[in-house]
Amino acid sequence: MSYFRPAIRNMAGYVPGEQPQQGKFIKLNTNENPYPPSSAVTAAIQNVLGEGLRRYPDPWGDAFRIRAADVLGVPPDWILCGNGSDDILTIVTRALVGEGQQLRLPTPSYVLYRTLAEIQGADCEEVPFNRDWTLPEQFAVGSQKLRLVFLPNPNSPSGTIIPPEQILELANRLNCPLLVDEAYVDFADTNCLQLVGQNEKIMVSRTMSKSYALAGLRFGFIVAQPQVISELAKVKDSYNCDALAIAGATAAIDDQAWQTKNRDRVIATRCHLTEQMSQLGFDAARSQANFVWFTHPTEAVQPIYAQLKQNRVLVRYMNFPDWGDGLRISVGTDQQIDACLNLIKDLVP
Amino acid sequence: MSYFRPAIRNMAGYVPGEQPQQGKFIKLNTNENPYPPSSAVTAAIQNVLGEGLRRYPDPWGDAFRIRAADVLGVPPDWILCGNGSDDILTIVTRALVGEGQQLRLPTPSYVLYRTLAEIQGADCEEVPFNRDWTLPEQFAVGSQKLRLVFLPNPNSPSGTIIPPEQILELANRLNCPLLVDEAYVDFADTNCLQLVGQNEKIMVSRTMSKSYALAGLRFGFIVAQPQVISELAKVKDSYNCDALAIAGATAAIDDQAWQTKNRDRVIATRCHLTEQMSQLGFDAARSQANFVWFTHPTEAVQPIYAQLKQNRVLVRYMNFPDWGDGLRISVGTDQQIDACLNLIKDLVP
Repeated sequence: MSYFRPAIRNMAGYVPGEQPQQGKFIKLNTNENPYPPSSAVTAAIQNVLGEGLRRYPDPWGDAFRIRAADVLGVPPDWILCGNGSDDILTIVTRALVGEGQQLRLPTPSYVLYRTLAEIQGADCEEVPFNRDWTLPEQFAVGSQKLRLVFLPNPNSPSGTIIPPEQILELANRLNCPLLVDEAYVDFADTNCLQLVGQNEKIMVSRTMSKSYALAGLRFGFIVAQPQVISELAKVKDSYNCDALAIAGATAAIDDQAWQTKNRDRVIATRCHLTEQMSQLGFDAARSQANFVWFTHPTEAVQPIYAQLKQNRVLVRYMNFPDWGDGLRISVGTDQQIDACLNLIKDLVP
Repeated sequence: MSYFRPAIRNMAGYVPGEQPQQGKFIKLNTNENPYPPSSAVTAAIQNVLGEGLRRYPDPWGDAFRIRAADVLGVPPDWILCGNGSDDILTIVTRALVGEGQQLRLPTPSYVLYRTLAEIQGADCEEVPFNRDWTLPEQFAVGSQKLRLVFLPNPNSPSGTIIPPEQILELANRLNCPLLVDEAYVDFADTNCLQLVGQNEKIMVSRTMSKSYALAGLRFGFIVAQPQVISELAKVKDSYNCDALAIAGATAAIDDQAWQTKNRDRVIATRCHLTEQMSQLGFDAARSQANFVWFTHPTEAVQPIYAQLKQNRVLVRYMNFPDWGDGLRISVGTDQQIDACLNLIKDLVP
């Protein structure tokens, strides 16, 4: 189809993690939460069914903004809701980066950032992390062409974090906005929410997919200064969040007791997974997320991934050119992780 | 915020129709269906709640594609699902129209088309309908710069239709793709689905918001040839449709008995509304949609809109420069329409 823009024709398109629609797998490959969401979510969604589906939803999702503002300690008009945080990342990219302009991201990280640049017909500058997952000096160097910097924090696949004070310094040095993608931050010791008020170039995105166990609901949001929110809002679809997602996400963020309990369980299992894998000879990045990145100093890990899959345990094998490969294992329940560990024990000497 | 693209800074942004979140209004302003959706939708969504929200949804929404393909008589890989048909229109625009290129639309019609062009930094060529809502000759003239043509059919606000044979001829003359936006087509006597197989430049978009009473669910789709679908898919968010929307939309399109009954009721009320308004001296466009466009040869209609609103009946007042103004009244229940008509009777001589 020669009618499509060259930028689109030349793209491969983003390939999501394996989502087997049938068969019983232990899924430790897409960082889903192993526990079902708060029961308050079910109740809130049931309230909307029937007559509540007939009408258009609130275009701003104010019920969520008001509740989230209270929980997060920011004003409601600092929040914009999205159809998953992917929608938020899309909106930010379209609002800031034109054809031929530049978007920066660290690697290895979330490959969607590159896809978003490609769709815009923009240049994508990939800056490799240092070997210890810190950022090199050049990540903070601005240029005329550079219009947006993405920083996943915690990062994937490493789960590692850049401290907020370094991120503030980074934003102060850059001459363009910086999106801190905090998809996994509820499993971390720190976050960048406080920085948004200190520099209007800093935006923080969040998702309900991971720490609220709502990957199937598609709900994310961004926190930024209100003059930023009002520009971003021009780019979003008018009714980007449906009535069920708004109701469910509002109930979820309201149930902080559930969230704290869930977080604590996931972190305990993450600790167990990391220790056991270290005893098996793997090197583990210091994860602040609901997954851990494992490499091995001597053994090939690709066959381990394949053997696990044959035994119906899905983990993520990732191979980054000029960087190396590893296994990213999502934190499941203790039982799921033990099943995975038992298989791995038989696969390494 | 000087960081935003000039195209975004200069935009006003799309303003959705009034959606009062409180107070009891008779809402005849945003073309929502007056009847609640099929009860099968509620049942299907309840099946997904809890555990079903924890995981990412099927990125392709295959359950819907397979069922819809059967109902519509096209192969499943001719269908792409969207988060409302607005998402579909966004995807098509981003895939086809680059900065400085051109998008064509007729006026008066859906103002979102213009917004989408503005976000892309593209030129928007607005071609006025003839006074009888037929298309002028120039609508079919191609150019190097023109990359996409939008044609809402039935159109809004008129509710009128361009016959499929004229649309095929239009597509054959154009040198770029043509998107036929069939948001309201289930209330019409004809549609363009058969044309998709006859010219790969023809794409047809549909929504579940109107004829399936699911505006709150956000679900739409596009029918196009598979080589077109695979390019469009590169531009969509990976998980653009949530698990609840996929389940609900699948149940809705499966219940064609509900749809037929609903359609018949809406058309009967549309006929009643049109007749009564004609007796009150209004001119009515020949609507094939779930709303009717009324003008008046002598009376000002803006005060009628304002008086109705004061009496808690919302209709849409629209004023198009160089064209004129009118009232677009959505087809509600018979009771709602009679309440509206009774008020109007006292407002015109």
